[in-house]
Amino acid sequence: MLPAFYVDDVIKRAITEDINYIDLATDLLISPDSVSCADFVSKDTGVIAGIDIALRVFELVDSSIQITKLRSDGERAAKGDIIATVKGSTASILKCERTALNLLCHLSGVATATSRLVDGAKGTKARIVDTRKTTPGLRAMEKYAVTCGGGFNHRFNLSDAAMLKDNHIDAYGSITGAVKALREKLGHMAKIEVEARTMQDMLEGIECGADVIMLDNMSVADMAECVKVCGGRAILEASGNITEETVAQVAHTGVDIISSGAITHSAKVFDISLKFRKE
Amino acid sequence: MLPAFYVDDVIKRAITEDINYIDLATDLLISPDSVSCADFVSKDTGVIAGIDIALRVFELVDSSIQITKLRSDGERAAKGDIIATVKGSTASILKCERTALNLLCHLSGVATATSRLVDGAKGTKARIVDTRKTTPGLRAMEKYAVTCGGGFNHRFNLSDAAMLKDNHIDAYGSITGAVKALREKLGHMAKIEVEARTMQDMLEGIECGADVIMLDNMSVADMAECVKVCGGRAILEASGNITEETVAQVAHTGVDIISSGAITHSAKVFDISLKFRKE
Amino acid sequence: MLPAFYVDDVIKRAITEDINYIDLATDLLISPDSVSCADFVSKDTGVIAGIDIALRVFELVDSSIQITKLRSDGERAAKGDIIATVKGSTASILKCERTALNLLCHLSGVATATSRLVDGAKGTKARIVDTRKTTPGLRAMEKYAVTCGGGFNHRFNLSDAAMLKDNHIDAYGSITGAVKALREKLGHMAKIEVEARTMQDMLEGIECGADVIMLDNMSVADMAECVKVCGGRAILEASGNITEETVAQVAHTGVDIISSGAITHSAKVFDISLKFRKE
Amino acid sequence: MLPAFYVDDVIKRAITEDINYIDLATDLLISPDSVSCADFVSKDTGVIAGIDIALRVFELVDSSIQITKLRSDGERAAKGDIIATVKGSTASILKCERTALNLLCHLSGVATATSRLVDGAKGTKARIVDTRKTTPGLRAMEKYAVTCGGGFNHRFNLSDAAMLKDNHIDAYGSITGAVKALREKLGHMAKIEVEARTMQDMLEGIECGADVIMLDNMSVADMAECVKVCGGRAILEASGNITEETVAQVAHTGVDIISSGAITHSAKVFDISLKFRKE
Amino acid sequence: MLPAFYVDDVIKRAITEDINYIDLATDLLISPDSVSCADFVSKDTGVIAGIDIALRVFELVDSSIQITKLRSDGERAAKGDIIATVKGSTASILKCERTALNLLCHLSGVATATSRLVDGAKGTKARIVDTRKTTPGLRAMEKYAVTCGGGFNHRFNLSDAAMLKDNHIDAYGSITGAVKALREKLGHMAKIEVEARTMQDMLEGIECGADVIMLDNMSVADMAECVKVCGGRAILEASGNITEETVAQVAHTGVDIISSGAITHSAKVFDISLKFRKE
Amino acid sequence: MLPAFYVDDVIKRAITEDINYIDLATDLLISPDSVSCADFVSKDTGVIAGIDIALRVFELVDSSIQITKLRSDGERAAKGDIIATVKGSTASILKCERTALNLLCHLSGVATATSRLVDGAKGTKARIVDTRKTTPGLRAMEKYAVTCGGGFNHRFNLSDAAMLKDNHIDAYGSITGAVKALREKLGHMAKIEVEARTMQDMLEGIECGADVIMLDNMSVADMAECVKVCGGRAILEASGNITEETVAQVAHTGVDIISSGAITHSAKVFDISLKFRKE
Repeated sequence: MLPAFYVDDVIKRAITEDINYIDLATDLLISPDSVSCADFVSKDTGVIAGIDIALRVFELVDSSIQITKLRSDGERAAKGDIIATVKGSTASILKCERTALNLLCHLSGVATATSRLVDGAKGTKARIVDTRKTTPGLRAMEKYAVTCGGGFNHRFNLSDAAMLKDNHIDAYGSITGAVKALREKLGHMAKIEVEARTMQDMLEGIECGADVIMLDNMSVADMAECVKVCGGRAILEASGNITEETVAQVAHTGVDIISSGAITHSAKVFDISLKFRKE
Repeated sequence: MLPAFYVDDVIKRAITEDINYIDLATDLLISPDSVSCADFVSKDTGVIAGIDIALRVFELVDSSIQITKLRSDGERAAKGDIIATVKGSTASILKCERTALNLLCHLSGVATATSRLVDGAKGTKARIVDTRKTTPGLRAMEKYAVTCGGGFNHRFNLSDAAMLKDNHIDAYGSITGAVKALREKLGHMAKIEVEARTMQDMLEGIECGADVIMLDNMSVADMAECVKVCGGRAILEASGNITEETVAQVAHTGVDIISSGAITHSAKVFDISLKFRKE
Repeated sequence: MLPAFYVDDVIKRAITEDINYIDLATDLLISPDSVSCADFVSKDTGVIAGIDIALRVFELVDSSIQITKLRSDGERAAKGDIIATVKGSTASILKCERTALNLLCHLSGVATATSRLVDGAKGTKARIVDTRKTTPGLRAMEKYAVTCGGGFNHRFNLSDAAMLKDNHIDAYGSITGAVKALREKLGHMAKIEVEARTMQDMLEGIECGADVIMLDNMSVADMAECVKVCGGRAILEASGNITEETVAQVAHTGVDIISSGAITHSAKVFDISLKFRKE
Repeated sequence: MLPAFYVDDVIKRAITEDINYIDLATDLLISPDSVSCADFVSKDTGVIAGIDIALRVFELVDSSIQITKLRSDGERAAKGDIIATVKGSTASILKCERTALNLLCHLSGVATATSRLVDGAKGTKARIVDTRKTTPGLRAMEKYAVTCGGGFNHRFNLSDAAMLKDNHIDAYGSITGAVKALREKLGHMAKIEVEARTMQDMLEGIECGADVIMLDNMSVADMAECVKVCGGRAILEASGNITEETVAQVAHTGVDIISSGAITHSAKVFDISLKFRKE
Repeated sequence: MLPAFYVDDVIKRAITEDINYIDLATDLLISPDSVSCADFVSKDTGVIAGIDIALRVFELVDSSIQITKLRSDGERAAKGDIIATVKGSTASILKCERTALNLLCHLSGVATATSRLVDGAKGTKARIVDTRKTTPGLRAMEKYAVTCGGGFNHRFNLSDAAMLKDNHIDAYGSITGAVKALREKLGHMAKIEVEARTMQDMLEGIECGADVIMLDNMSVADMAECVKVCGGRAILEASGNITEETVAQVAHTGVDIISSGAITHSAKVFDISLKFRKE
Repeated sequence: MLPAFYVDDVIKRAITEDINYIDLATDLLISPDSVSCADFVSKDTGVIAGIDIALRVFELVDSSIQITKLRSDGERAAKGDIIATVKGSTASILKCERTALNLLCHLSGVATATSRLVDGAKGTKARIVDTRKTTPGLRAMEKYAVTCGGGFNHRFNLSDAAMLKDNHIDAYGSITGAVKALREKLGHMAKIEVEARTMQDMLEGIECGADVIMLDNMSVADMAECVKVCGGRAILEASGNITEETVAQVAHTGVDIISSGAITHSAKVFDISLKFRKE
């Protein structure tokens, strides 16, 4: 679903980082005729994301490698599960191994972290969404991984929706002033979100027509109160260090959206390895 | 120390990811004449890495921004410490904020994770080193961050040193066969490392002249035994899921090197924020 | 306001297209010491867009050239008006001339075409907006030029808002089905627009919660009727070969938005030339 | 005929402009299994250019799409004519649609505008040629489109032939001085053209051996006189706001070449649409 | 004179090739405060080309380095001559050294090889010109170096002039057929050259209006005869393994042009070194 | 063995250099239906390198061209030998010809120059190795060509091994100081080489644990003495203007390594041409 040009660019950059010249051990030792079979084996439990990207590494480096995909992005894998198998030139497989795993393990880590928050919010209407706190160069991949984990995407970047922070508001003296000024200039397809530190902020945001209100670092009690007072007049987004431990509480306040930076910037890698085997 | 072209390329890619067209909120609301001052404030305790890179974001986007650096890479910061200050166009600062923080927090996270392992190995000769398990596109930055945290760098990629894994060894029937075949072809400036699963492997590696032996997922007791038997004839590297909890034990076996993938692929972000303030 | 990296990339590509090797006439004939002064002179009447971009060409090629800007983007110019003046190396000015003019004349052409529609809609609430029918490689510049001419921007691309066309609707059997399915998956910051060929379509779109309804190639009478029936429940966008002649009529139907592809894909160039003069 | 690398680069840039992340409507709504058939249908009368380029968009994005080309570049199309048909993944076709049309309609617009001038000059020996007044990034494509419309190409850029303008001539005091100085340094494969404002200029250019003389903004009568006096000693090029209305007159003066910037910089798009249909 | 974007791209590629990550010796040992002075010293006799390019390496890597240029491109240098001096950060100078020398020595080698042929042709009207047999990626630099050595440039590439070889001629049955067919389609600014193996070929080329005739691998006697018979009706170019030993003879046949591939593809490097010294 | 992305980038850059727009002669004269067969014919004696790269040019430009490879890289060819044959579109073959030959002839030249030194050192243990004195942009290809000629590779760049020169040593007062300081910071996979001008330097280098000692511009007698004194405690590398004439003498001193810049920077092209023939 991600644009092929983007995926290929990331892969080329990664391969180039890993093979500057030749792969000394492989190019000097492994016969070009040697053929192997290798499985991507899960060493943990979680949600897969990036398997098509990982397999694309092999395609790009050596189009003769045969690929069998056993799990798709968004599916769960448990320890010992085989996610995909590659078969072909031993040398090619060895050269792709690290790059493919680095992508797959990172993205599956993001999907898995997301799925934990999604699980925590189960039974409520709250959606887990990402932020712009992504790894430089990998934003689109990470946002995709978030959806594999059951999450949703916040705005992609500063160009596709407007979030008003203190500085923007200060420039116009009030939330109302800033939202009005922005509507005057903003395209009709772009939404406006306003950061609210207090219920007062939220109410002002709602009244001047903000589409979304971010409840910034509020207590669970305050958020619950905001939800009540809002009464559905705007989309409410909870933000601020939500963890696997706290997500259920936050979700039960009735907020629409829970955003988390940690699912992209601090996700532990999902451990997957490539096991060579005889056929 | 990192090449400027590389750093600038990473930054341009990140900025372009974050501003596809214009920054809707900032470009439509903030006057080009508005001037601000903002501090990078530590919200946790750890080791800084990437502050020059983060500040370069501002330089590249708006060369008129004034920069004051208060902490250097490799220095520790505690909660509340100001690491650097930027002053200039409010609009420019807002546009750089997320990209600068994404880089700084990620790299400082890597440095901090590294420093914890380094601290754990204190009092031994063991060095903490990185692996090739890095984030695609950011290898050089992450390897640099490892050194900021007191660690050392393993080989950069497949082109600058040779590590013999099962597949390479199988191709020649034995460690000895593979090392000999490789020496026949390898340049005189490149070292050879051999993966050893048993003391027997280690001994064979030493005898055929491998420069470095990786003790792969061995128990602490086995590693200690290997160190004794090796008697300094090769560099010994411990590898396999070493954590903050286990690092001291491993280090006290007497190994020379402890490599960790987690310091680059699973480091929690170091939380730093950009606080705007009146001057 | 456009990102510097993007602008510079477009300029470098254009300069490279125009000077593959050396500028034969200039490099072989003009002394590096020769200094000139040259004015950008309007040869027509319209709205300026891209003057900063045009002047950036000179900066990039020869940073010693002195620049005086007399008109800003969005301002009108009449025949004979001087828009900017450059002074410095004759050779550098000659090498930049064509690239700077190609950009400035094209973008000012877009701004001028936009301003004519804006003028036609004066006295109504209708905004003139662009489409995705832009020149490959220049979308951001052309969308910026539209705002210089008094217009507004529709979505930038397929990633920042969703427009449902026949194919999308057919996939779900009805507008209602498609909008519902999309809301289930779409991020909370993205708006949905629905193409309506009939008032019935419009009503269905409004009822299932589309944010914007495009009235596709409707007669003026039908549009007026739609506006009445809609009663402000959704944003209404008129689309389909609107010209300088027809824009006023359409605007007076009460639609919120009038979109035009012609302002970007068929705008006549605004004729501006670079006149060398003695100082 | 255009180099594949160049064509693909333009397409990649355009696709990337149009799909920054995912195609929200298509990727979230259209099943990957859905298959469609769609025709490129002419909605006007003119000359086709860029159909191979437009179809290459589909190939690059999804190599499984089947393509049937019914018209070739340089052929005429009337309202309702089908130019090509694509068949395959609905999602892929929808993602390529706008980019393919933006290229095809623009280039066919250039070819059509050219063909009108060519028709106007019919019965004379005058060739219609383009200029360097092209859209940044698209010069090679536009120059190719000019040939599809029956025109010819002037020099491609400043590196492949030399045109002497006032500034070059002033540097040496006279046309003769400049041409002589240039011949001393210019490679033997590059031609020299001189701008002439008067018959006197033309004569001086001819006598000092210029290959081509541009008659710059002369009246039809003056041009006719120049042709007579020149007597075939140099190639004569008429330049300066030649339109469909005036081209015949100019051509009948007997000039060899008529150059027009408008055919590239101000060509109205040729309206072609992509119609989905049941098979 | 070469476009800055092109020069900088070549330099960035070269620097990146030489410093993949960090300069191990320099970055780990040399203090950032250490300052040095170093001279580019000629170790041979010849013509300098590329000194501005070599010095640009330092500018790009560290803009604080001070540069003093003592010789310009095209000037001769003898053993021991200082060509330029750089002063500033020791670390920066060390990092630039190899890249700067690789460029300077190669280009000066080309200029020197060219100058030897130019010297050999002295006293005749024959010009020494290059070919398309250049080093991939460096064509513009090498063609520039040829002019520094007193040579001239043949066509830059396949797009700016037409050379008819056997295959082109065979396609039309005769030189006359091919030249006529080409004139029908070729722009009026592009010249035509024809390869002639015999005087008969030459005569046919002249008669059908070729601008230049290449005398391909003819004996000196045959060339002399051709010059006589041609009588100035076309430009005559001698081609085929001309060496320093044979160039005088060939030049004295009266040909206009002598082309040599060896001056670009087989030029021995001009030995220049960078000597550090105390100030 | 070289990474495909790198090879393709070099080829694209070279093709783009050679065809800026269209191939005037070929595109305007040769029918797309014309088919030819052409042989790469050796016109000299030497070692082939780059035949796969040369053939890749054809694949990239026109995937329908059929390729038959008769010689592999590293094999010798004598005058008249056919190295490979291409068959397919005449136009495509003509467009690839120069680029393919420029690469093949240059790299085979490097391999051949290397093989001459290798032959000279036959019967000794000395290996011929390259340096960093390579053509900008082609380092990996040239280093690969060196191995085709029987040589070995020195370090690839400044990032994969450390060579201590005067400046590095001066910074620490002594070879011992510098080597010790470097070991403190250098990764365990990187080797250290020290430049020695005297036997004293060599001994100090050996004692402080340098892996490799470069004997810099020493006389043959001094080198022989060094070899004796060293007694195998370090790898010894002879460096400094070694030629085909002097290499045997140097090799017989017993040094391990002989490095040569000339094999990459001053190798005469290996003359190979592409001969079209009837099938």
